Amino acid sequence: MPIPPRGGGAARAGIMPPSMADARALAQRLLDGDRRALARAITLVENDDPDGYAVVREVYPQTGRAAVVGLTGPPGVGKSTLIGALTTARRAAGRTVGVLSVDPSSPFTHGAVLGDRIRLSEHFLDPGVFIRSMANRGALGGLSEAALQAALLMDASGKDDVFLETVGVGQAEVDIIDHADTVVLALMPGSGDSIQALKAGVMEIPDVIVVNKRDHPLTETMVREIRGVLSLAPQHGWRVPIVTTEAARGEGIDELVARLDEHRAHIEAEGTLVERRRRNLRNEVLGLAATRIRHRLEAALADDAGFARLLDEVVARRLDPASAAAALLERAGADA
Amino acid sequence: MPIPPRGGGAARAGIMPPSMADARALAQRLLDGDRRALARAITLVENDDPDGYAVVREVYPQTGRAAVVGLTGPPGVGKSTLIGALTTARRAAGRTVGVLSVDPSSPFTHGAVLGDRIRLSEHFLDPGVFIRSMANRGALGGLSEAALQAALLMDASGKDDVFLETVGVGQAEVDIIDHADTVVLALMPGSGDSIQALKAGVMEIPDVIVVNKRDHPLTETMVREIRGVLSLAPQHGWRVPIVTTEAARGEGIDELVARLDEHRAHIEAEGTLVERRRRNLRNEVLGLAATRIRHRLEAALADDAGFARLLDEVVARRLDPASAAAALLERAGADA
Repeated sequence: MPIPPRGGGAARAGIMPPSMADARALAQRLLDGDRRALARAITLVENDDPDGYAVVREVYPQTGRAAVVGLTGPPGVGKSTLIGALTTARRAAGRTVGVLSVDPSSPFTHGAVLGDRIRLSEHFLDPGVFIRSMANRGALGGLSEAALQAALLMDASGKDDVFLETVGVGQAEVDIIDHADTVVLALMPGSGDSIQALKAGVMEIPDVIVVNKRDHPLTETMVREIRGVLSLAPQHGWRVPIVTTEAARGEGIDELVARLDEHRAHIEAEGTLVERRRRNLRNEVLGLAATRIRHRLEAALADDAGFARLLDEVVARRLDPASAAAALLERAGADA
Repeated sequence: MPIPPRGGGAARAGIMPPSMADARALAQRLLDGDRRALARAITLVENDDPDGYAVVREVYPQTGRAAVVGLTGPPGVGKSTLIGALTTARRAAGRTVGVLSVDPSSPFTHGAVLGDRIRLSEHFLDPGVFIRSMANRGALGGLSEAALQAALLMDASGKDDVFLETVGVGQAEVDIIDHADTVVLALMPGSGDSIQALKAGVMEIPDVIVVNKRDHPLTETMVREIRGVLSLAPQHGWRVPIVTTEAARGEGIDELVARLDEHRAHIEAEGTLVERRRRNLRNEVLGLAATRIRHRLEAALADDAGFARLLDEVVARRLDPASAAAALLERAGADA
């Protein structure tokens, strides 16, 4: 389904379809700082509604101004508390903040989500802060794309800082925050699995590492272990700082803010911000294209008797998976 | 590029292209138990060589006999040692074994790979054991597909047991072993991040949990924590067992083998083996199709001036990522 070009003649001639006009009005309200318009637009992209993408298209020229910080790390290290403390610090400096928490799909408990909301609750009534959770509904790659769109919407709405939070220590989780300008890994004493993952190269080296819950007696051991891992990593002009915090009491947050600002100044001075954004945007365009193709494929196949028969052949070991995939693509190509 | 149907007229008429004839000969040698043929075929699929897929196509009717066990868990818990011990046990029972280790892409150390090889070295000279590592070269989704093809090749070569090993605690890693009949999560005392990930629902509940390095004083605490998490999980007729092992000394391995066999008997009796394989095969066919589309897209765009210009527009904030993706898809559709 081709999307019409921006500001096309149809719109100017007043024969724009109603949903297009709605999207444009929503975009204008969002740019004017209307919180409900922002919330509505995020819901639209989350639901994969074409109107949501239309809004992003409208506001995109106004994006790129926010400092986007991605925060990842295993569950339980206090990422939401850290973001709450960072938000307080940014607000005290007169900056506005957007927070996007990407919650894991939880098959049997939603404890994390509820907990996060409580920890960020002090900011709910502040008009300079916009907080939003997105749930992982198991869509392969789809959540990452929706999160990018939501971050662009927050950026366009004039937020000076956008925090993207995701839970996890694997590659899929890192992909979600990969469109941040600065990537922060949050750990705590006892994050042994994450240290091992860094060491083994499963997890990429972030820009800043935070060790939260520093009151724990093993904090210094943890910091030493991280230093050991970092000493093996190649240096690219930026020395990854390790900041210890006790976010629940706001301790160490000033230093964390200083390191975030230093990293931003570094990438701006080196020209790597532009380079990084270009690389991220390239991946995002490809990711969006691939996700759309897959969704189209899945939608087309949901009630497709031909696909069911193809699958029967695969299950019966008469047709191998790769040949079945090739047959699917051939059919899809013929349909396009 | 459409793949010709299996055993087509061209082959029977003797006008089969040379690589096709080679693939068929290689497939026959593999089915006859030739180790070098198996190694060669895996290299072909790893390199995404069409001949590799041709071999899989030939041997696919002979697959589905092996018991495929996937083992995941954070780096450092001793997964390779566990697989080595399981291999010893299976060999003692007269069964043949294939091991496929999916290694993480390591930007600065290959320690894990080297270590794994040493731990499995006692089996290298045993003709009843075939061990292979595959490296993650950062191909999005590609490694998972290649791993499936390699597992099918091991299965076809007559291995009674196939162990798939992957490092990590995120969704991407779990996807790789998702085509296993039985999924084992290996942890050790100190795997706090993984427990949190299970608890928060980031990681799916496996079929069997192993706590390795049980000599550690905190093993009992660990087992209690896991029990707590499992008590919250919905029961689906199978109670996830927790087995403690000291794999380096072969301790607890008999119990682990018994639990694996019980799980297999359970899924066979319940009919869930067939159901699970159908679901896995469905995901694999879709995954292969999506990966191929993305690879084609990336290959087509590598030196494409039009894509570079499109990207310039995105970077300059004149064209939003989703519209750029739509434009790409439209162009790709026109080219097809």
